[in-house]
Amino acid sequence: MKGMTEDGAATAQEQAGRMESPDGGDFWAVIPAGGAGTRLWPLSRAAQPKFLLPLTGERSLLQQTVDRLSAVARPEHTLVVCGPGHAVEVSRQLPEVPTANIVVEPLPRGSGAAIGLAAALIAREHPTAVMGSFAADHDVVDQAAFVRAVHAAAVAAREGWLVTIGLTPTRPKTGYGYIERTDDEIARSEHGVAYRAERFVEKPALAQAEQFVTSGRFAWNASMFIWRVDTLLGEMERLLPTLHGALMRIAGAWDGPDRDAVLAREWSALKDVTIDHGVMEHAAKVATVPASLGWSDVGDWHGLGELLETDDEGNCGVGERVMIDSARNVVWSTTRTVVTLLGMDDVIVVNTGDALMIARRDRAQDVRHIVGELKRRARLELT
Amino acid sequence: MKGMTEDGAATAQEQAGRMESPDGGDFWAVIPAGGAGTRLWPLSRAAQPKFLLPLTGERSLLQQTVDRLSAVARPEHTLVVCGPGHAVEVSRQLPEVPTANIVVEPLPRGSGAAIGLAAALIAREHPTAVMGSFAADHDVVDQAAFVRAVHAAAVAAREGWLVTIGLTPTRPKTGYGYIERTDDEIARSEHGVAYRAERFVEKPALAQAEQFVTSGRFAWNASMFIWRVDTLLGEMERLLPTLHGALMRIAGAWDGPDRDAVLAREWSALKDVTIDHGVMEHAAKVATVPASLGWSDVGDWHGLGELLETDDEGNCGVGERVMIDSARNVVWSTTRTVVTLLGMDDVIVVNTGDALMIARRDRAQDVRHIVGELKRRARLELT
Repeated sequence: MKGMTEDGAATAQEQAGRMESPDGGDFWAVIPAGGAGTRLWPLSRAAQPKFLLPLTGERSLLQQTVDRLSAVARPEHTLVVCGPGHAVEVSRQLPEVPTANIVVEPLPRGSGAAIGLAAALIAREHPTAVMGSFAADHDVVDQAAFVRAVHAAAVAAREGWLVTIGLTPTRPKTGYGYIERTDDEIARSEHGVAYRAERFVEKPALAQAEQFVTSGRFAWNASMFIWRVDTLLGEMERLLPTLHGALMRIAGAWDGPDRDAVLAREWSALKDVTIDHGVMEHAAKVATVPASLGWSDVGDWHGLGELLETDDEGNCGVGERVMIDSARNVVWSTTRTVVTLLGMDDVIVVNTGDALMIARRDRAQDVRHIVGELKRRARLELT
Repeated sequence: MKGMTEDGAATAQEQAGRMESPDGGDFWAVIPAGGAGTRLWPLSRAAQPKFLLPLTGERSLLQQTVDRLSAVARPEHTLVVCGPGHAVEVSRQLPEVPTANIVVEPLPRGSGAAIGLAAALIAREHPTAVMGSFAADHDVVDQAAFVRAVHAAAVAAREGWLVTIGLTPTRPKTGYGYIERTDDEIARSEHGVAYRAERFVEKPALAQAEQFVTSGRFAWNASMFIWRVDTLLGEMERLLPTLHGALMRIAGAWDGPDRDAVLAREWSALKDVTIDHGVMEHAAKVATVPASLGWSDVGDWHGLGELLETDDEGNCGVGERVMIDSARNVVWSTTRTVVTLLGMDDVIVVNTGDALMIARRDRAQDVRHIVGELKRRARLELT
């Protein structure tokens, strides 16, 4: 696994003169790149998932994630775990990431397997390395705050904690997971403070979410995790022994002639498990670093619309358009079709040529119902 | 002008066993086919006007107009007046209409010139023929009532009246022209009654329109006119002597070698005038036959939507679509794009591939503003 060893070449963050990597340059960044992003249909779909799309700029969300992480991890210390259907596009989008660092899982088996495999592969040569795991398809506005949070989390991770970066909530979102922190400071540095975490709460009711926001003790769980690989693997051995055993056998065979056979056999037998449910909610030493990053999960068209630059009437998007008496619309056309709106407010219009979607912005979460209907109609090429 | 003479072949209405033509088979039908129908953009546009489009069935509005008129006039007595840009498509859509009966005006000069030219051409061989003029792009549901109204009007026309078929109004439409009738019955037959008309009122205010509807004396002016050609030409000579002179010179040269030269010279010098403003509002003997035909001018997408078959949620249109929690929408797609709506009500969606229009149904009249904006942007190929 050559790409994962230090080759001594000038790294991206050195060239850019950015902040030093946490942990003396030994920090590893892992990006599990899975999920289609159904709620961004018809632009995102199985063959063309959200993380491969340039939604918030000229580069894809995955590329922006790698760019962001270049401030804390060198390309040789950056791993992407993706599915076989996306491996080619991932490697073309990320020429700076060494070949061996693009890990292709044969089947989707949840973030527990994907992140665990990355940890097991890193641990072969760097058994106490600190790694962070970051979603491939989120947006972060405040890069400096992000780097500070990773550094603060790495200090606690070095001490054997499983650390989440917890986003200070700006709204009582009911669709998110929340982390409650205690007042126990378990690590403090010039970059920030890590607190012992109390519990995870998935998708609260609105009243509860409102309470969470005002309490000051709850943060959004954005699946940003920092830990030592041995800490994670130890907790996996305790909590998910079957998965742990499989990962160890796969990592053991990784550099030998049986890699594909062992991977195929072990992986297909795994059960789906997320790192949150499988490990974090039951682990012994969980900490959280509160941070305000201008973060978004770019979860649906309404949310994407909030990240884009708007005109005077609050309209945003891409493609040629004519807007008459129309405000606060998200219009996204990847075709040469001129999109014209008359008297329309608060609507999402997405035109990909093979499909056209028009939805009220407050129904953006339900776009997946359209995908469900198309699957029922066996129009799989559109999903 | 061979097509305009009686060739003795079995005519459409004879073959179909329909009602006999008014005026002993000598009735002439004239269809001025002009106007783009801008409010049905992006489907209708300059090069592809409303009357050439199959909007309410498999045949175009023009074809349906000719079909409807085949009950009162043979193809040899049916004249279409159109512009040079539409002559090819008109002749291909109407193979049953003799070549000589498709009259191409060099430039648009209003319905006065177009209808007047048709009358002058008919008058060459049939100076006292009764003709009717009917828009090329309207819809009539009740064919039998239409035929009866034409017959009733022909009786009055034979007596030297300029007769309109007045549509009994079903709603206080402010965008239409109205005709007020008197109580003077000037002709009565088994087909209906013609009354002396009192006055024309263009686009009344809403309160006035409501009064018109309840009065029982007002009818919509749908530009359905029946008269003897000599009556019309006589009134034109009195009211529009310049136009009349030009038409006479054109008709005189029509069958000779100078037709194109005379037409080009005379036509370009004409001023735009409508038959309503130029003749009907000032003529001496104007009558109206009240009729209820299930008539529509197919004036905009909202109106077209009211003519189409709807599903249980009130949605209608053409093209594959997925509708979720969406009602009373008009969705018209001439592409293979699947159109999906989520949480959308009372909206018009028209997708022609090069343009996509999304408008509130209650703004259907303002679609022309989009066309105006595209012209300002010099996107003339879309207009």
